[in-house]
Amino acid sequence: MYINKISHYIPDLRLDNFYFSQKTGLTPEDLYKKAGINTRSKCSAGENSNTMSIKAIENCRGDYPFPLEETDLIIGASYSPYDTVGTIAHAVQKHFQISGCKALQVSSACSSYVNAIEIIQGYYATSHIDFSLVLATENNSAYNDESDPQSGHLWGDAATATFISREKIGSKSLMIIDVMSEGLGHVGFGPDAVYMRPLDGGVKMPAGRDVFINAIQFMTMYVKNIVTKNGFSMDDLSYVVPHQANTRIIYQIASNLNYNKEKILINIDKYGNTGCASTPLVLSENWEDFQFGDLIALTVFGGGYSAGAMLLRVV
Amino acid sequence: MYINKISHYIPDLRLDNFYFSQKTGLTPEDLYKKAGINTRSKCSAGENSNTMSIKAIENCRGDYPFPLEETDLIIGASYSPYDTVGTIAHAVQKHFQISGCKALQVSSACSSYVNAIEIIQGYYATSHIDFSLVLATENNSAYNDESDPQSGHLWGDAATATFISREKIGSKSLMIIDVMSEGLGHVGFGPDAVYMRPLDGGVKMPAGRDVFINAIQFMTMYVKNIVTKNGFSMDDLSYVVPHQANTRIIYQIASNLNYNKEKILINIDKYGNTGCASTPLVLSENWEDFQFGDLIALTVFGGGYSAGAMLLRVV
Repeated sequence: MYINKISHYIPDLRLDNFYFSQKTGLTPEDLYKKAGINTRSKCSAGENSNTMSIKAIENCRGDYPFPLEETDLIIGASYSPYDTVGTIAHAVQKHFQISGCKALQVSSACSSYVNAIEIIQGYYATSHIDFSLVLATENNSAYNDESDPQSGHLWGDAATATFISREKIGSKSLMIIDVMSEGLGHVGFGPDAVYMRPLDGGVKMPAGRDVFINAIQFMTMYVKNIVTKNGFSMDDLSYVVPHQANTRIIYQIASNLNYNKEKILINIDKYGNTGCASTPLVLSENWEDFQFGDLIALTVFGGGYSAGAMLLRVV
Repeated sequence: MYINKISHYIPDLRLDNFYFSQKTGLTPEDLYKKAGINTRSKCSAGENSNTMSIKAIENCRGDYPFPLEETDLIIGASYSPYDTVGTIAHAVQKHFQISGCKALQVSSACSSYVNAIEIIQGYYATSHIDFSLVLATENNSAYNDESDPQSGHLWGDAATATFISREKIGSKSLMIIDVMSEGLGHVGFGPDAVYMRPLDGGVKMPAGRDVFINAIQFMTMYVKNIVTKNGFSMDDLSYVVPHQANTRIIYQIASNLNYNKEKILINIDKYGNTGCASTPLVLSENWEDFQFGDLIALTVFGGGYSAGAMLLRVV
């Protein structure tokens, strides 16, 4: 399986720490220190996870790795839905008039992207399909209470479109060497530490400390596991791409792995925590800098909890 | 792949046509004629898709086909979430303290159950897993406007737990002969005909006529396709289990297939449209009546739109 291309859409609006200082009563300096975020991306009125996903595809400007109408499988990955019936996948299918394909939405919170890739791997093993599209997209702002001092300042909005094929096509691809995931609902404060309850509080993080500890522990462990399982060492890795939840989490993972933090790719400083869109967004933004032969470990942690990782080779 | 058992939970409360007559101004007779529903199941305060799913498992009263703690994969199937981060799968994992398993939630609206089974088939092809659990559960009432004359009277709440193993275990199983699905977001009024927008109207059906026509067309086609693809004829089928959206849809499918409507299993009259829970709920309620050798076609239609089918043999 090969990732042929990743495109993305980020809304123009940025909310800075002065804005959240006025909302929460915390100082801009304290807000920055909490998670290393300078600004967060936020949708305009009328934008949502469906419209943003369509824009992420349109940002290819017609330069698709495969004809869109030949897409065999569309997966929306998101915990911040506009519509759970007319999902991201169905909206994309409608907008681009893609017939004869499968369409569904998946969530394991911020690790949904990795589960979507695993699901595609499964469909490739059981179905005669060639071309897949993952829309990893979050519209956190729709469900966020900006005055919440615990987590109101964390969240950003973004959409990503990942084009996947069974065989290598195009000039530069990310070969998916391995993908792994695990549910961790039984760990720590589990499903109550971070939640997104559409009718009961929206997105909140009442147990941030427990999330912090477990995110570091499991993202560290998952990088180690996927690297060693596939016969590599940390020295072989060109980059680590962690879920963008908090720079303190990210730099602690670098420290635990004794890994050069310059080679850990981040974007949380600009956009905030963009949920399951965060890791494909990092890949998309750095695509031009990837060199043939680069080995990349992607690691995620979802608030349910869940963990996952992917090992990618630039080919 | 084998379905070893299906258990379910249905809240006690039933809303009848007199209740909806008062809410909508339509007569009880007209309400009955619209979709063939006598009563709808409805959660009590404090119940949601996570708590109902746990109760569906608990209704096995300890008589599990495999040890719960050995479950390798948990999939919540639902479009009516309590929590999109702490999903059904994560809540079940927490409640029953199941470690070392995968956990995620999927939606393709009322066809999510079939997509969940397809996803499991994929994981069986790519991972070393044996035991899976699908929680197909809807809490429509959380998002329903009961005074909506178009669709307020349609929806019911229910949870189902489907136990699946790679090899046959136990005395009576449903062997999964085939499973198929298709996204239909590009068809008709597509993602806008039925929707479930948590922040923008909840569950609504502004284009009921379009849903009606396409549900009949695609559920009919999918029964025919899965039967002929596997070398059977309609005469070989012991039962057809359609998605429970409307008895007029169901009986039109029987007519199109020239199939004895007594052999089409229904429960919509008692519970209303219980979304993606409806077909496993029918299987669970009729489990004791299934005889060894029975061939069962299950067919679904999701409001995004989507279609799907399964062919099952009682073994």
